Amino acid sequence: MRIKIYVTLKEGILDPQGKAVQHSLHTLGYTSVKDVRIGKYIEIDIGDPSKEAVEARIKEMCHKLLANPIIEDYRYEIER
Amino acid sequence: MRIKIYVTLKEGILDPQGKAVQHSLHTLGYTSVKDVRIGKYIEIDIGDPSKEAVEARIKEMCHKLLANPIIEDYRYEIER
Repeated sequence: MRIKIYVTLKEGILDPQGKAVQHSLHTLGYTSVKDVRIGKYIEIDIGDPSKEAVEARIKEMCHKLLANPIIEDYRYEIER
Repeated sequence: MRIKIYVTLKEGILDPQGKAVQHSLHTLGYTSVKDVRIGKYIEIDIGDPSKEAVEARIKEMCHKLLANPIIEDYRYEIER
């Protein structure tokens, strides 16, 4: 089973990497860019049989390792 | 207009960050994890009026700055 996880900074948390990319895009002439936010995109292949078991495990993994729940949000999609 | 861009390493390119996360997940007891690949997730707010203009611009930005087309693939979604 393949899981796609998107980890993003919470609203209101400063994103210096996004600001740097925005600045570079402006320098390249893309001045219509108003805001850039950068997050992580994680694909996991997991051998668990049931969707319910996988869902519980993914939440645990995000809380323990993949995301920092204090400053980051995450969402995920499960593909068969 | 909001654009979501997903940048991933091409198939076959070694992903040391993914391997490190996989190892950590195994250490935490999630031994059913078979593979982890890590990419970037980028959200851009852009002020261009037409979807066509934005699409051309996004492709340019990805090639020039956001992705390395030699080792990375990208895909994007445009939201109104």
